[in-house]
Amino acid sequence: MQELVAINGEVFFPEKAKVSVFDRGFLYGDSVYEVVRAYNRILFAVEPHVDRLFRSAARIGLDLKASQKEIIDMIYGVYKKSELKDAYVRIIVTRGEGPITLDPAASPGPTTVVMVKSVPKIDPKWYSEGIDLVVPQVFRNPKGALDPNIKSGNYLNSVMAFADAKKRQAHDAVMLNKEGFVTECTTSNIFMVENGIIVTPPDDADILHGITRQIIRGLCEENEIPLRDEFFNFARLASSDEIFITGSVKEIIPVRTLEGKKIGSQVPGPITRKLTELYQKYVEDYCRNTSPN
Amino acid sequence: MQELVAINGEVFFPEKAKVSVFDRGFLYGDSVYEVVRAYNRILFAVEPHVDRLFRSAARIGLDLKASQKEIIDMIYGVYKKSELKDAYVRIIVTRGEGPITLDPAASPGPTTVVMVKSVPKIDPKWYSEGIDLVVPQVFRNPKGALDPNIKSGNYLNSVMAFADAKKRQAHDAVMLNKEGFVTECTTSNIFMVENGIIVTPPDDADILHGITRQIIRGLCEENEIPLRDEFFNFARLASSDEIFITGSVKEIIPVRTLEGKKIGSQVPGPITRKLTELYQKYVEDYCRNTSPN
Repeated sequence: MQELVAINGEVFFPEKAKVSVFDRGFLYGDSVYEVVRAYNRILFAVEPHVDRLFRSAARIGLDLKASQKEIIDMIYGVYKKSELKDAYVRIIVTRGEGPITLDPAASPGPTTVVMVKSVPKIDPKWYSEGIDLVVPQVFRNPKGALDPNIKSGNYLNSVMAFADAKKRQAHDAVMLNKEGFVTECTTSNIFMVENGIIVTPPDDADILHGITRQIIRGLCEENEIPLRDEFFNFARLASSDEIFITGSVKEIIPVRTLEGKKIGSQVPGPITRKLTELYQKYVEDYCRNTSPN
Repeated sequence: MQELVAINGEVFFPEKAKVSVFDRGFLYGDSVYEVVRAYNRILFAVEPHVDRLFRSAARIGLDLKASQKEIIDMIYGVYKKSELKDAYVRIIVTRGEGPITLDPAASPGPTTVVMVKSVPKIDPKWYSEGIDLVVPQVFRNPKGALDPNIKSGNYLNSVMAFADAKKRQAHDAVMLNKEGFVTECTTSNIFMVENGIIVTPPDDADILHGITRQIIRGLCEENEIPLRDEFFNFARLASSDEIFITGSVKEIIPVRTLEGKKIGSQVPGPITRKLTELYQKYVEDYCRNTSPN
């Protein structure tokens, strides 16, 4: 078992994996990426992740010069070579190396990086006791300027928000847009529960359309748990009964406090617990019914 | 004479200059940078550039672990070693290599890159005949989310705007903010002339506080050319008598058309020409009166 990184198909040990300083990913964050969680030799939900990778790339006019199937095969190839059972897999595609100019046409072709790493340890208390969120000084990148639904190498907005949260002893930041509406956390979507109804910011909020978020949507529908897409502000979030955040690696994490104020009477709340069970079962079923590539 | 790149003090030929794929500059664009123009063995205005590098770094909480003097000495060291007379010098400081997490505290220290390259060729017609500008689909990153006055590795907003301009056969894009006010071009500040008065967006617009812009401000004051800081919209810019854009490498470039509409009766206009002369004289005087480091 060995963590590995492939760069344009060539496989390296992580400490040897390097790219040119003239790669546009390094110069401008001119890249797109995805993170896939692998469970027991299966890349969970790899198709929607790779599909979103292509959609992000299309939004910035980046040509991957490969098909979705070729990218999936490439990811599986490195993952299998690593012999890791569970894994954190990150694929980054940059617009490639070239002369120093903003002009995307100056680059001859993409740099494709696949990183296969151990799954980062998350404190089990986050799941059993919940995490603390604060609102950072920066507001979310607005989609008219730098759409959070383009999963790109421009992550400074989130880095600053996360640093702000850490400085205030919180676990993460929940970001508002300029108008004061809740969008998402630095690398996860957010949901709240009000009187038994789940509410999450709609697709046209300044958010990433999360894969986990989409799975939860489906689970709610199947299990007749009411879920609404609505814009809501901080005050409404703060007075909700439950809050949880979602992501491919984090899965579902309950929120304990928001700006120091306790959320709900019980953490995790009953709906968060129910969804966590449903999600875990969904992952198990997916992995059981999927044959390794 | 040889283009060179130094990474944390170690000097490489450009094709050998590489950084880890786990460098936060590559993962997140978590970096700051500056571009300095060198004329005849002198790094022009290197002090204000390095000062701004430190201010950008402070804004994102990045510790350069060096003094401004040490950074200037480092840049001069690589530049002298290159033996290039005129040069394009780019310094990039990232938050360094580390585990994959937004948490800035996870990085042990910065990666400092100094690139010394030949000055990119700019078509002389740009100066004699002017360039064509269009308004791109994206609006400028707002300073409350990702301040354009932080000169960082997050340049996708500008890359998208530039690609848009290229698609429409223009030379560059002039970016508006969400409210419709003019901010700046993708990598330069913008000025217009109205009835003999120069107008430029103020410091609190969503703009980089350009070094060339600041020099022009001083030249206007010394030479009693009226200059005002004002917010203005597209319509007012389109009906101005002259437009020019400024940057350390481009210096001063006149604008010929805006969204296809001709600007003024003569390009470059009389004030643009006057300022170009004054700027060239300023650079010559600076280089004559500065001893190489």
